[in-house]
Order: sequence, then C-alpha cells, then structure tokens
Amino acid sequence: MPELLDFCVTRTDGRARLGRLSTPHGAVQTPAFMPVGTSGAVKAVTHRDLLGVGAEIILANTYHLFLRPGDQLIASLGGLHRFVGWSGPILTDSGGYQVFSLGGRRTVSEDGVCFRSHIDGTEHLLSPERATEVQARLGADIAMAFDECTPYPVEKDEARRSMELTGRWARRSRDRFLELKGQGEGGAMTNGQQAQFGIVQGGVYPDLRAESVAEMLEIGFDGYAIGGLSVGEPTGLMHEVAGETTDRLPADRPRYLMGVGMPDDLVEMVGCGIDMFDCVLPTRNARNGQLFTRTGPINIKGARYASDERPLDSECTCYTCQHFSRAYLRHLYLAREITASTLNTLHNLHFYLDTMRRIGEAIMLGTFESFRQGFRQTYSRRPQSV
Amino acid sequence: MPELLDFCVTRTDGRARLGRLSTPHGAVQTPAFMPVGTSGAVKAVTHRDLLGVGAEIILANTYHLFLRPGDQLIASLGGLHRFVGWSGPILTDSGGYQVFSLGGRRTVSEDGVCFRSHIDGTEHLLSPERATEVQARLGADIAMAFDECTPYPVEKDEARRSMELTGRWARRSRDRFLELKGQGEGGAMTNGQQAQFGIVQGGVYPDLRAESVAEMLEIGFDGYAIGGLSVGEPTGLMHEVAGETTDRLPADRPRYLMGVGMPDDLVEMVGCGIDMFDCVLPTRNARNGQLFTRTGPINIKGARYASDERPLDSECTCYTCQHFSRAYLRHLYLAREITASTLNTLHNLHFYLDTMRRIGEAIMLGTFESFRQGFRQTYSRRPQSV
Repeated sequence: MPELLDFCVTRTDGRARLGRLSTPHGAVQTPAFMPVGTSGAVKAVTHRDLLGVGAEIILANTYHLFLRPGDQLIASLGGLHRFVGWSGPILTDSGGYQVFSLGGRRTVSEDGVCFRSHIDGTEHLLSPERATEVQARLGADIAMAFDECTPYPVEKDEARRSMELTGRWARRSRDRFLELKGQGEGGAMTNGQQAQFGIVQGGVYPDLRAESVAEMLEIGFDGYAIGGLSVGEPTGLMHEVAGETTDRLPADRPRYLMGVGMPDDLVEMVGCGIDMFDCVLPTRNARNGQLFTRTGPINIKGARYASDERPLDSECTCYTCQHFSRAYLRHLYLAREITASTLNTLHNLHFYLDTMRRIGEAIMLGTFESFRQGFRQTYSRRPQSV
Repeated sequence: MPELLDFCVTRTDGRARLGRLSTPHGAVQTPAFMPVGTSGAVKAVTHRDLLGVGAEIILANTYHLFLRPGDQLIASLGGLHRFVGWSGPILTDSGGYQVFSLGGRRTVSEDGVCFRSHIDGTEHLLSPERATEVQARLGADIAMAFDECTPYPVEKDEARRSMELTGRWARRSRDRFLELKGQGEGGAMTNGQQAQFGIVQGGVYPDLRAESVAEMLEIGFDGYAIGGLSVGEPTGLMHEVAGETTDRLPADRPRYLMGVGMPDDLVEMVGCGIDMFDCVLPTRNARNGQLFTRTGPINIKGARYASDERPLDSECTCYTCQHFSRAYLRHLYLAREITASTLNTLHNLHFYLDTMRRIGEAIMLGTFESFRQGFRQTYSRRPQSV
C-alpha cells in the first residue's frame, strides 16, 4: 500500500471541519470548492482570474479530456498540469457521470460502459481499469474510482444493483491504480504521487449507502466521495442522505460531495462534515445571466436592471462588483458579449469561494452554527427582485 | 471656437511622428492603436486585461451603442466612461461605417441615412446632427463627424458625389458640435471637453482626397481621419492613397487612419505620418484562431500544432505566451472554449500594442527606417507553417 494522501483536520466545530489537504502540487484548505474546468479550462476565465478569486484546486473532466485531446497526447506533453498550465492541485472525476449524462447509445456491462462520443459519434469503452489508466496518464493529484451514477427517482432494486456494481468497479479501479502505482512514474502514471478516492453510491436509500460505505472502506482509498446526489431529488432528502452517509465516513480522510451545489447546500453540507465540493452552477449560471448575491440569485437580464447603477452585490469585493454596474452587466449579457460571461463567472466564483472562506472563518471561531443560521435567514434560492 | 484638443509631436523621424494626445481622461502616446470595443467592451477581454497589454485608448461604436442600450440611457448613467467602467480615453466613431455595413434597407438622402437595425429591424435615422448628438451624449473624448463610406471599387463620379456629401455632412456635424459645446456640460454634452475629428473621403482618387482634405481643413476640426480605405482595394494602393492624403494634413493635428489594419500596414502608415489606428483584426482574428507572430500569422487549429509545446511566439511576453503552449491553445480552440477567445485576444492585442511600442522606440532612436525595413523582411501576411 502506498502512503495515504496527507490530510489533517485542524479544527472542528460540531460536525463541521477545517482541514488541510496536501497534494504534490500544493496544499488546499478545506472545506474547499473546486471550480469545474471541463476540458482543461474553467469556462470564460483564465487561470490568473481563478487565482485572483482564490481557487486553490480545480476539477477536470476525464470524459472530456479522454475524447479530446486524448489522455495519450496529454501524457506525452507531460500531463495535465503542464498541458493546461495550472500548477496547483487538480482532481479528475472518473468519467462515469458524463458517460451517463452525455454519451450516446451506451451499454453497461459488468466490464464497463460502451458509449458514443457526443463530439463525433465514435464508439468508446470506459471500464474501471480504463478510467484509472486514463486518469493515471492525465496525472491529476486526485483521481476517482469509476462508478455508475443512478438517476432520481430509482427503484431500490435498481439502486442496489448499481451500488453493488459500483462496489465491484471500485475494487477493480483500486487494484489497477495500485498496480500502476507499483510501476512508478516511469510507467503509465504521469504523477507518481497521485491519490485515488472511492465513490459511495446507493441512491437515496440509507441502508444501501451504508453498505456502499462499508465496501469502500474495506477496499481502502485516500479519500471518499459521495456520488449520485443532486440528480433531481428534493433538497431536504439530499441533505439527509448526504449527512447520514458522511457520518459513516472515517474522520481522518477527506470527504467529497460530488456535483453539489447551491450556496446553501455548501453551508448545510459543511455542517454535516463534508470537506470538498465541485459544481458547475457558479460557472454555468454565470453564462446564463444568473448571478449570486448574499440574499439570493439575480437574473441580470431583467428589465429592472436596465439603469441600475449599483454593483451586483454591494458587499462583494470581486473585480466585477468593484468596477461595473448591473446596468452594464445587463447590457453586455443582452448584447451577447463574451466579456459578460467572463465578468459574471468571476463574480459567481468569487461568491462561492468567498462563501467557503466565510464558512472556514466561522469554524475557526467556533461560530459555525450561528453562521449557518444567519445564512439560512439571509439567503434565498428564489431569484431576487432587488 | 473652443480650444483645440491638446496634441504635440514630440519627435519625428522622416515622416514618422511620436506624439502625445491629451484628453480629459488622460494622455495617449502616439502612434497609437485603439482596440475596438464595439458595444462598450473589447470582445473576450476585461478592461484590466486591456490595461495589462498596454491599451491607452479604446474605440466604441456609435451605431451599436445607439441601438443598444441607447445613448439616452448611457447619458442618464453619466456617459460612456462611467457606464462601461473604463476611465481612460475613448473615441467613438460616427456610426457611418456600420450603417452602411450592417444596417438593413438603408436610404441615403441629403439629410442623412434611414436604416433598419440589424438587431430588431426597427427603423432609425442617423444624420450629421443626430450622430453628433448621440456622440455628445455618449461623451467619449473624441467624436467623429458623420460620413458616407464608399465601397471599392467605385466609379469616380460616385466617389465625388459621396465625398462632397461627406463634406456637407462634416460641416453640419461641426456646426451641431459647436452648438452643443456652447451649451456646456449641463446641456446635451456629457463630456464638456469632447473633441471632434473630421473624416476625409474620396475613394482611391488622389484629387478627390485632396479636395476633401481642403474642405475638412476649411471647416476646422481637432484632428483629421482618413476613412474609406481598407475596404477591399489592393494594399499598395491603400498605402499610396493614405500616404498622399496624410501629406496634405496639418502637422500639428492628430491624423487617424480608420479601420487599418494588418501589422505591416501599421508600420508603413506610421512611416507616412499616421498617428492613430483602429481595427477589428487583432480581436476578430483571435476569435477565429488566427494569431499574430513576428514572422506572420498562425492558424492555431492546424494539426501541426496538436503536440507543439512551444508558445505562439517565443519572443512574446504576453500572459498567453508566458503560460500556454500552442498544443493547449489549439485544444481550447477546437473545444470551442470561451477561454480560447480570451487567451488569443490577449496575445493578438499584445502583439499589436507591442508593435506600436517598438515603432515608437524606433522613432525615438531615429531608426524607424531600418525598423521598417526589418519588419518588411521578417513579417509575412501568409499564414506561417512554423
């Protein structure tokens, strides 16, 4: 067994934790939010913009990079960090989620998933071994075991079948990972210190989640992720399932809730002991003109903002809020200017990362619970008409 | 007559000039290249990016801003500088060029041009008075007289008719401008120190250009622009006409060659005494994957760049060249990532502005002619296969 990824919890406040995740490309303070850099770029912003808003780690999608430009090419150019020019920590997902959400005409077998590329229709197979090899070539600091992600709602029988398959795939992913690791950096692994996380599945069924956790712990990973949530289930149910599952995860390993979520989800889930998050919401919604503020989202295209000279959020210290009015942002959005996507993305990412900073501060001060209460009272998911 | 815009030539080298243009929003070193910020944003970059590549003045399109969000709205929000959040110098064009290139079903009369918006088909009139009023409301530091831009080729009779119309329109533009100026900043003029340039037309006919220059000088403007070039005529002819026309313009006033051009055009035209340029080439071509280097343009989508680890231009000090490989830029372009447009635009603008800096340096050192010769030998317009 290789040495586990270095992670230490530096402070707790209730179930909320402050921690430090050390990777070959630097440390990350947790709880952390990872901006999504699908194809090796966080859409509409540059890496220096990301550093400017305080991003410490980014996520890249194995599915996208596997199809274009290809993991072999990236490995031949020295791996993902060097290829994309981001020298900080990177996590790659397993490709599983995109295979199910983007891949065409897929067939799932015990071996893996056969699917067609959403780009050119070519047929590909991703199996636990293949997904592990692809990620080993990409060389991110954290790789994910290959999993099947169930939709919502799903019958319990189907959720069990899928959870069990994910368990067997996790074991194969881990075996292949350790094999590659054994070959060292000269082999098929671009980043000799890559870590690997397992993914807990089981839908919204607590007993299935518990079984899945047990299986993952038995296999043993550097960290544990909760997958298959935020796929359409009610928010309360998601919080419940994620919370119960988190309680079963070991305290000394990082816990990552995949694809979540809304700003209030982050606060609630840190309150249940989650350390890491990723989500396309801040970036995707930015491009669609939905901007986050402390009281809730704003749809910037609204006529009410046509001559609104105020910044998006008067308390926000991001570049966008420090320099531009709602009226200008609305104009750029309606004129379909690319710069609208950039300014909006900068703001939304700043909002997410600042929320994480505020969460961390509250944990540090031992005031997380009152922060959480305050956030619930102040923040609404409903589009604001202010 | 208001005081003329402050402009002084600080050094000459042959016909090439180094100068300083003082505006209410700061000084501009000339020769200057103005990035085009069509709707109040230079496409795909932020203002801080622009400052980073050394832009000192930007151009905004009157036609676009008139249609959306409207000059009245912008005036009510304090004018263009405040609305777009750019505190440096801004020049607005007259709207004439876009009316002819973008406006639908237009009818030209002595009064002005009736046209349909390319956005929603609504009918609008731009006349010399109207274009002057719109620009006065926008409040840029430099406004342009309303002109008719002839295509190429055009018969001499038609070129004469159009040039004479532009002359009458220039007089009406100037009259209205001085009238508004007389009313002061409390009136319809957002920027009380706005200057106005006249535009010389006359197609590729030297005698018509000479007549147009005489007319503009008689009217008297703060500066003089050469319009109606780079509309399809051969490069040599363009250089010839622009050069001859420039020789007729007064030495103590800024000379602006509109819509030009390729990097080698900039060098040649500074050599003829031009002080100011604008062009969409660096920004538009960036979005289409054409990137400028010292030896010529590169089409980044080329398969030859798939695994090319080199920067676009090894001598370039821009953010893009300092951090990213051709392979990555090609990947981002093919993946249609917005960030591709941003990184490419940053590079192309840096290339243009750096070319202007190198030109200025050569004039300062009295070595412009050898710089020009060197540029001709090194730079080719043909896409490079390096």
